[in-house]
Amino acid sequence: MSSATSAVEVRPDLRARYRDVRGFTESLAGPLSAEDQTVQTMPDVSPTKWHRAHTTWFFETFILGPHVPGYDEVDPAYGFLFNSYYEGVGPRHARPQRGFLTRPGIAEIADYRRAVDDSVDALLAGAVTPQVAALVELGLNHEQQHQELLLMDIKHVLASNPLRPAYLERDHRSDIAPDAVPAPEWIAHPGGIVTVGHDGEGFAFDNEGPRHDALVPPFALRSGLVTNGEWLAFMADGGYREPGLWMSDGWSTVQSEGWVSPAYWIRDSFGWSVQTLTGARPVDPDEPVVHVSWYEADAFARWAGHRLPTEFEWEVTAAARDGAVLDTGSFGLHPRAGGEQWCGEVWQWTASPYAAYPGFAPAAGAVGEYNGKFMVNQQVLRGGACITPAGHTRPTYRNFFYPATRWSFCGLRLADDR
Amino acid sequence: MSSATSAVEVRPDLRARYRDVRGFTESLAGPLSAEDQTVQTMPDVSPTKWHRAHTTWFFETFILGPHVPGYDEVDPAYGFLFNSYYEGVGPRHARPQRGFLTRPGIAEIADYRRAVDDSVDALLAGAVTPQVAALVELGLNHEQQHQELLLMDIKHVLASNPLRPAYLERDHRSDIAPDAVPAPEWIAHPGGIVTVGHDGEGFAFDNEGPRHDALVPPFALRSGLVTNGEWLAFMADGGYREPGLWMSDGWSTVQSEGWVSPAYWIRDSFGWSVQTLTGARPVDPDEPVVHVSWYEADAFARWAGHRLPTEFEWEVTAAARDGAVLDTGSFGLHPRAGGEQWCGEVWQWTASPYAAYPGFAPAAGAVGEYNGKFMVNQQVLRGGACITPAGHTRPTYRNFFYPATRWSFCGLRLADDR
Amino acid sequence: MSSATSAVEVRPDLRARYRDVRGFTESLAGPLSAEDQTVQTMPDVSPTKWHRAHTTWFFETFILGPHVPGYDEVDPAYGFLFNSYYEGVGPRHARPQRGFLTRPGIAEIADYRRAVDDSVDALLAGAVTPQVAALVELGLNHEQQHQELLLMDIKHVLASNPLRPAYLERDHRSDIAPDAVPAPEWIAHPGGIVTVGHDGEGFAFDNEGPRHDALVPPFALRSGLVTNGEWLAFMADGGYREPGLWMSDGWSTVQSEGWVSPAYWIRDSFGWSVQTLTGARPVDPDEPVVHVSWYEADAFARWAGHRLPTEFEWEVTAAARDGAVLDTGSFGLHPRAGGEQWCGEVWQWTASPYAAYPGFAPAAGAVGEYNGKFMVNQQVLRGGACITPAGHTRPTYRNFFYPATRWSFCGLRLADDR
Amino acid sequence: MSSATSAVEVRPDLRARYRDVRGFTESLAGPLSAEDQTVQTMPDVSPTKWHRAHTTWFFETFILGPHVPGYDEVDPAYGFLFNSYYEGVGPRHARPQRGFLTRPGIAEIADYRRAVDDSVDALLAGAVTPQVAALVELGLNHEQQHQELLLMDIKHVLASNPLRPAYLERDHRSDIAPDAVPAPEWIAHPGGIVTVGHDGEGFAFDNEGPRHDALVPPFALRSGLVTNGEWLAFMADGGYREPGLWMSDGWSTVQSEGWVSPAYWIRDSFGWSVQTLTGARPVDPDEPVVHVSWYEADAFARWAGHRLPTEFEWEVTAAARDGAVLDTGSFGLHPRAGGEQWCGEVWQWTASPYAAYPGFAPAAGAVGEYNGKFMVNQQVLRGGACITPAGHTRPTYRNFFYPATRWSFCGLRLADDR
Repeated sequence: MSSATSAVEVRPDLRARYRDVRGFTESLAGPLSAEDQTVQTMPDVSPTKWHRAHTTWFFETFILGPHVPGYDEVDPAYGFLFNSYYEGVGPRHARPQRGFLTRPGIAEIADYRRAVDDSVDALLAGAVTPQVAALVELGLNHEQQHQELLLMDIKHVLASNPLRPAYLERDHRSDIAPDAVPAPEWIAHPGGIVTVGHDGEGFAFDNEGPRHDALVPPFALRSGLVTNGEWLAFMADGGYREPGLWMSDGWSTVQSEGWVSPAYWIRDSFGWSVQTLTGARPVDPDEPVVHVSWYEADAFARWAGHRLPTEFEWEVTAAARDGAVLDTGSFGLHPRAGGEQWCGEVWQWTASPYAAYPGFAPAAGAVGEYNGKFMVNQQVLRGGACITPAGHTRPTYRNFFYPATRWSFCGLRLADDR
Repeated sequence: MSSATSAVEVRPDLRARYRDVRGFTESLAGPLSAEDQTVQTMPDVSPTKWHRAHTTWFFETFILGPHVPGYDEVDPAYGFLFNSYYEGVGPRHARPQRGFLTRPGIAEIADYRRAVDDSVDALLAGAVTPQVAALVELGLNHEQQHQELLLMDIKHVLASNPLRPAYLERDHRSDIAPDAVPAPEWIAHPGGIVTVGHDGEGFAFDNEGPRHDALVPPFALRSGLVTNGEWLAFMADGGYREPGLWMSDGWSTVQSEGWVSPAYWIRDSFGWSVQTLTGARPVDPDEPVVHVSWYEADAFARWAGHRLPTEFEWEVTAAARDGAVLDTGSFGLHPRAGGEQWCGEVWQWTASPYAAYPGFAPAAGAVGEYNGKFMVNQQVLRGGACITPAGHTRPTYRNFFYPATRWSFCGLRLADDR
Repeated sequence: MSSATSAVEVRPDLRARYRDVRGFTESLAGPLSAEDQTVQTMPDVSPTKWHRAHTTWFFETFILGPHVPGYDEVDPAYGFLFNSYYEGVGPRHARPQRGFLTRPGIAEIADYRRAVDDSVDALLAGAVTPQVAALVELGLNHEQQHQELLLMDIKHVLASNPLRPAYLERDHRSDIAPDAVPAPEWIAHPGGIVTVGHDGEGFAFDNEGPRHDALVPPFALRSGLVTNGEWLAFMADGGYREPGLWMSDGWSTVQSEGWVSPAYWIRDSFGWSVQTLTGARPVDPDEPVVHVSWYEADAFARWAGHRLPTEFEWEVTAAARDGAVLDTGSFGLHPRAGGEQWCGEVWQWTASPYAAYPGFAPAAGAVGEYNGKFMVNQQVLRGGACITPAGHTRPTYRNFFYPATRWSFCGLRLADDR
Repeated sequence: MSSATSAVEVRPDLRARYRDVRGFTESLAGPLSAEDQTVQTMPDVSPTKWHRAHTTWFFETFILGPHVPGYDEVDPAYGFLFNSYYEGVGPRHARPQRGFLTRPGIAEIADYRRAVDDSVDALLAGAVTPQVAALVELGLNHEQQHQELLLMDIKHVLASNPLRPAYLERDHRSDIAPDAVPAPEWIAHPGGIVTVGHDGEGFAFDNEGPRHDALVPPFALRSGLVTNGEWLAFMADGGYREPGLWMSDGWSTVQSEGWVSPAYWIRDSFGWSVQTLTGARPVDPDEPVVHVSWYEADAFARWAGHRLPTEFEWEVTAAARDGAVLDTGSFGLHPRAGGEQWCGEVWQWTASPYAAYPGFAPAAGAVGEYNGKFMVNQQVLRGGACITPAGHTRPTYRNFFYPATRWSFCGLRLADDR
């Protein structure tokens, strides 16, 4: 983040953006009851009200505390309760026990948000240093990440209920006619030295830099995502039962977890349905597949006679396509069929383990614990999902999850050697 | 239960009692927010709203369904969600996942309770068979058990929160002058054939019968409960570090759980405090110790040079003391110092494994799964705690928990051979 | 043990008995390779060489050390390695890691046994105090228990091998014509006050006393054991799938362990076979069922419309039958069909939780950790199995295991109220 | 492996090499008793006799079976028992239960080895196809890997014994004067396009190719390994207690495992000792540190102000140094101080996650399960350890383990950006 920080201009609209982003979080929580916002259905999941409080704590801890003279914390206990993983800030509540916290309730958390918002707004009403502006920018991007997590998490919570309730009855994107679905084509690249990583214009996370050269072999990427229809063919062909298609760790996971389909798929007497944020409905073969782990994506690619792209193959190809597709733009609750879909439907697993770029150095202090300390055991995803907030992604954006992860909105596109 | 059932008279006040008992549950839930009522902090704990729904399901399933012609369930899904362990009724939601259920919310559960209450009230307004009356009586006693569980469980929930909130700010019993604390004395019994178990007058659970003769050796019980002061002496003498005092399974548990004091005790720079339903406060040496497992009670008794009483020693002694003490009578949130305390402060661990009385047979059908199927691996407790609803206990009442259990309000009294 | 100790006469044949019992252990280990004697296939199982060493350590620690002036331990490390559970003697090697010990090897353990045997023999060649004689007697009975454990354990080890090797090719009992199988009959008892427990004549473990009166209701026991044929009927009738037959803990265990038959039963295309110490063979419907847990025995009895006997019902009935049947007498490797079978085929689960008799007090010191510290969570078995050494049992003998235990030679007989 | 295979010449000395490599395995097992060779002290560890059998099974399954007409397996059961992880060959014995197999014993396994060796020798006495020669070469390299595993595993077994026995009393390398220890220096590289991976000359594993170009930044590697002395400074500076030095997964592991030093280090009243294959001795500050996980190596490098090298940085630097150092050459039981130590002392963790090279394709059939299916969640190590058999390594050799692994002989060297 350090290099990003030094390059940031104080954007004139920061105060308005702060209000918008913070308000969007509250609008996401809007349909959820106090009960919905409280529970945690697996260690990876955090309660909605925890997300609302944690993002607030981030502004209080990294901006208000250090940069507003005489600032008093809203509640000294919140630092312990709502620190996610910043070891440098002090001890914190155990992650798997976030769902044990019935107090503060959602009303008190709304108060907490308002109090911090008022203080940040007052701060931004005056002149702020580039450093503070950069921290606010970081805080807003951090909050956008938690907006996506909030939806991933509440999807898991609601799907854990045998009543299978919907988060919302309808997805506003349903009203927008989707793009026509072009036939997938292979987009070839001749290989050679390419330049990847963020160039310092506008906000980026520290792990997107330094920008640097990389050597890629000749390759091609497929223009469209892998679809449910293709996944059904993989399943029908015994994909989940053939060890030869799988990484050893993946095969162990398939067996221990009993996976036979993507997550949130439900088999009933009519065939396969899928649980979405707007309720259950039949699997649509034209939609991109979502909620598959890296292990499954990798096995599928092998079965299909292709492979996953590396993150650099993805980045240089995506950056060369129409720029407009490289931001999520159209927020929605479930991925839709159609188009090249570099962004805005599902995160796309890559063949690249998540590791530091040459010369990477995290920011000093606790805020530097943001990305660097996760650079082992995880795989990079590129793109952006329907639930990723608009304006949040770019071609250099590096998302990362463990290879067994399924609760994020993750899918895949195929690659090939040329 | 079968013998109890056949003996039950239709009590004229059943309709009023139904209203009182059901209303008391709601008053217990009153101080709790939607968030408080939703979470589950260990598999043994159930959410408050689950207790409210499950007790309602019991009336709907065992009374309204079979005995009200044309009765329609309030919601067919509730049978799956709110069945606790009645295998005979059908499949059910997994116990450790009761805290995953955010829907139905507390408002819907209040509606559910009202709907069932209206139906039961209408039923009781007319003539009912002795069988139905007995089932209502069973349902009310069942609900009283869940009232106690509700308080045990919410105590665990609130104590799992680092903020350590109180359930209520004060215990109404605080206003009542406690009895003077008489010096403990030993109450001797010459031994011989005694008659134990319920005689069929008034309600009793099936596991309290058949009434039968038993042979007891000469023995003596101590008139008062073991106190916090005595427990502090045990701790100071290394009681938790001396394997020779412990059952082998108990010693393993002490080590794996890291026990060094009763549950809910907190060591800080001022000494030992205890978390209660009304908040934390210093340990009072005169109060009876509470939240100790059978393993700890057994080790303490050995350390003290005495032993735990058998359940029959307890029953014949308690029955011979002033009858008034044999019901909890004065409901409260934390045990108080003073008196003989056979009942109304803490449940008292006995040396007796929980097993069937000679000739015991559970009731036919699913309702017979009530007590009999737990008759292994658990120990009997006698008496009744401050949080046990008034009118719920009797000298023959057999409570039971696993020997490692601490979240119930369990303490001990001492016995000796004579 | 204290009362037993004070009553023991110095038996003139103690020196010879010592030699016989110790030699029998070595003969049991005889068919086993160094590899066989080393491994541990579950935490409950101990390696053969560990049994050989531990029983030797018992004599060294409780007899030679305290009672032979100037005695030097064979190896000071053995106290740590071969202490089983005597907390009073000091720290010890973790039980689940007994199979990690490749050294000392079987040759060194044979040396250890010889050295200790020489010392004990020299001690017994002279005059010994009654206390020492009692300790030798205890050590020999302890060693007999480990002889049985050795066979239970090696059966588990060999059955864990997909090659399913036999311990021995044949059981010498196969050459002896079994008793004719009388039709099972019900042996009734009128109930009343009975006297149970050991009377102090000859050796007994401390947990068999004090002898005392007990009140039993009228009852009847079945003369023969439950057979494989009866068990097959239980299985065919869905016994393992009907929760109403089971204790709640038992039903959980059935599901988590996937039990569908007794342990060591193997289903193949020809039907059910059973793995024995002499290899696999078809299940014989006339043989007593063996390797069933208490949970299974209890469920079977309920299915059959009967119940398990209490330990006192067993004891008074067995003691009143032909005395000769109350010792194992004919050692063998697998239970045989026929007769009343109070002893010598399988241990018989009772309805009685394992607890102290009135007035029970363990011996002082570490040797007192023998039986008392296990008096919770276990169930009493009575009788004696084919692999129990001859001369080891009596009507008052109390064996005990956890209710989920199956690797001991445990079966059942039925009881009824009268 | 396919490309390697096609390039292999039938080496005239293959028959002699077969004899030598196979004989070396037996010489490694020589000091071990039957008991030593049987046990398994953690799931990663395999018993010595299992290694001896599994390597034999490899020749039988991939060479004798398919390439010797009419070949009869020595024992059909061995395929199940001694398959390690080749899903394509069929089901296999569960890895964590390899230590349950007491039969076949070491004598039968010696017979098995002899029978297979005789058949292979007869095969190699005649003309063999390049394909068979390549498979024999693969089998020999596979066996050499198991020679190293055998020593890693027996070290763990012996160190699990409180007696802490030695594998051998002395290491023959002790007699050889070590190289003088030059001061560590930084070996710089200007960066640019480099060519890495195996070129097809001589044997290599499939994962070493295809040879390809890669772009490396300017960097420098340190000439000597990180030493025990440096590690003691890291420990003294609180390295194991400072979360800011660690990857998030690493810090979790430090806490859950309680790591405070490298594996096999023992703290006693005299300071730190280390358990080696020749017994325990004081930690020598000049020796390279060994038995540290990737998490520890990564944290150490961060503490030291440097970083781990990538595998390509390592490869191009090592290949440019004196060729003689790139083979283990001098086999020994513990790493020694001195020199550049690219090879022959410890495997060196790199910053590179283990992944496929561009264009990588495993061999067809079960033998192709060798390396490719492990290409996720693991980190590459380069170099070779003292216990790696002579002639087994090359600059392109890619070893790999999970980042928490410590039982392999793993250490590190430092790198820096330039």
